[in-house]
Amino acid sequence: MSLQKEVVEKRLAHFRSRMVDKGVQHTLLWDPDNQYYLSNYDAISYSRPIVLLIDQKEMKYIIPALEEDHAKERAIADHFYIYHEKIQNNHLDTDYRTPLHTIINDWEKGAVVGVELDILPASVYQILRDQGFQIKDIGQDLIDLRAVKDEEEIYWLEQAGRLSDAALSASFANVKAGMSELEFDSHGDQKLLELSSKEFSGLIVGYENWTCSGIERSAMPHLYSSTRKYEENDVIIHSRQVWINGYRAENERTFFIGKPTEEQKKCFQLAVDAQQVGFEMVKPGVKAKDVDIASFNVFEAEGYGQYVQHRIGHGLGLSEHEEPYLRFDNDLVLEEGMVYTIEPGIYVPGVGGFRHSDTVIVTKDGCRSITKYPREMKDLMF
Amino acid sequence: MSLQKEVVEKRLAHFRSRMVDKGVQHTLLWDPDNQYYLSNYDAISYSRPIVLLIDQKEMKYIIPALEEDHAKERAIADHFYIYHEKIQNNHLDTDYRTPLHTIINDWEKGAVVGVELDILPASVYQILRDQGFQIKDIGQDLIDLRAVKDEEEIYWLEQAGRLSDAALSASFANVKAGMSELEFDSHGDQKLLELSSKEFSGLIVGYENWTCSGIERSAMPHLYSSTRKYEENDVIIHSRQVWINGYRAENERTFFIGKPTEEQKKCFQLAVDAQQVGFEMVKPGVKAKDVDIASFNVFEAEGYGQYVQHRIGHGLGLSEHEEPYLRFDNDLVLEEGMVYTIEPGIYVPGVGGFRHSDTVIVTKDGCRSITKYPREMKDLMF
Repeated sequence: MSLQKEVVEKRLAHFRSRMVDKGVQHTLLWDPDNQYYLSNYDAISYSRPIVLLIDQKEMKYIIPALEEDHAKERAIADHFYIYHEKIQNNHLDTDYRTPLHTIINDWEKGAVVGVELDILPASVYQILRDQGFQIKDIGQDLIDLRAVKDEEEIYWLEQAGRLSDAALSASFANVKAGMSELEFDSHGDQKLLELSSKEFSGLIVGYENWTCSGIERSAMPHLYSSTRKYEENDVIIHSRQVWINGYRAENERTFFIGKPTEEQKKCFQLAVDAQQVGFEMVKPGVKAKDVDIASFNVFEAEGYGQYVQHRIGHGLGLSEHEEPYLRFDNDLVLEEGMVYTIEPGIYVPGVGGFRHSDTVIVTKDGCRSITKYPREMKDLMF
Repeated sequence: MSLQKEVVEKRLAHFRSRMVDKGVQHTLLWDPDNQYYLSNYDAISYSRPIVLLIDQKEMKYIIPALEEDHAKERAIADHFYIYHEKIQNNHLDTDYRTPLHTIINDWEKGAVVGVELDILPASVYQILRDQGFQIKDIGQDLIDLRAVKDEEEIYWLEQAGRLSDAALSASFANVKAGMSELEFDSHGDQKLLELSSKEFSGLIVGYENWTCSGIERSAMPHLYSSTRKYEENDVIIHSRQVWINGYRAENERTFFIGKPTEEQKKCFQLAVDAQQVGFEMVKPGVKAKDVDIASFNVFEAEGYGQYVQHRIGHGLGLSEHEEPYLRFDNDLVLEEGMVYTIEPGIYVPGVGGFRHSDTVIVTKDGCRSITKYPREMKDLMF
């Protein structure tokens, strides 16, 4: 199923009015998630660039030949410029830069071009600069637009949340000492794919897991799951993102095999309490920084502030991590429809890592979590 | 397990001598795979930039606080610059650009700085340019170095190939009408994780599948696996990449549920024959273009050239697709130790898509495949 056409067209209208406000005549978009958001076309694009060009009148896509059918079936766009990679078509464009030059040669001299300055490759930036265009960053506008989710997006986020809970249940139903981090993940994966296949047809579902087991690995917040096998008395952080139709939920739990130590129990409870403070803080009108600081203070009050290594949460939607961030230096005021992870954590050498993550939608007067797996110690000892 | 220290140091020495040849005094690397290749540190870095800076004397890493322990445990580097994201440390650097400015302020005025021009974000390019440095593309040098694999890399590639074969066997052992593309994938995933967990400890294993079923979906080469359920008489392209310790094998098979039509049989056999021609062409001294053209001509001779949409193959190693490409316009001469996918395909409207992909290592006098799943029709009808 694709996003409703009118939903995408509404987004595009908002984006175009931002362009006008900023004095941007043309926009060149590189990020696949931004492209999907404004065109409904979810490409696989790593070694063959796909470029989306937007002005007030038209939307143009530069597409490799092997994506042509897919793009034309899905994308809301006015023109497609296809480039080829076989000898039979070597009289046509064989590099994405050829149609790019064709398109920008038609632009007014010295026009203002909007780009995602933190994403656009330097080589493409050089092409625009060498043609004498003025370049303006339009990345923040896309962040702003994407930050507040519409009904369509919230529907898919909720599906992702529910499916992620089912996956966690399946992993935990099978957990035991001697299984590897990756085997633990795979029980959840299988359940997720079985369930989503039963409920939906013709939809893309995906997932990513990072499971860090044992005192040493759990104390590092960012590691891919490995073949390390669970041991008796391990502390483990299982992190899972699930996406459906592009939209993601993040669902993470710290759990134990066997008996936690007294200090592990204390750290676990602090992480639960800090997360609870986060849930209670999130509502429209509150500043992003205040959520982060309030949650941090739960650890700090007990002398564990030094073991915090990261912000309390990030935006979520189409990308793994989206701005805006719930971070101590972000003055952004939260709005209804924003989506954040709430995931305060501490990483204590010799003791382990402790972090749950849930994904919440900001509501009219608070927030609601789309991930609901139990969070208490009693539910997370195996 | 990490790559052997001396292996990585040898790579670094090669890269530094390339820098000298090019007159590049400092290199700034952004791509995580390039960073891993030269430092042995495999970061998860999507919303927190990690930057590697190399000159003739030193290697410096800019690292977010939550990666500090992991980086210091793994990376071969002389200095680490840590940036933070909690209020307790707000007197320290809280943005990666602060240490970046500190480092580049020490560089000689007007120095030549090597960057990956097709990867580096425009905003970082601007920082370097605004400081008056001369910027040179060093991306091709990394492509060249990475293209020829060393013994360590070939060992892991072979493991990845063997594991991918086991995954395909498990998926095919369970295939039936009524199961979804994603469920088919998941049987292979589970086998892969079980087997790799049994054989290795403490290693990262990952995978990616794209399974496109039915006439319409198989005829589009690039689609994520979906919840679409297999139907009687489907033609299906199953594509799997498996990686272990960073190194990837690609393994793809076209298969049938029920009875293929006469035209589907013909197209399938053409894809098998075109791949065979590819295997036979690959050897040191042959040009990349000639492999692509010879394989294309198998389709062309039977009137199917118009249904070819992509080159015969891409390089493979640490990234999903690596340059160099086996493409009609690439004069590159193949060398022993290079690794390529051989994957000619045709996508015929109303008939389906037909493509196998295998990963081959260029040997002294030919090539050998690290993926060995059977390729003939009789093995691929279910």
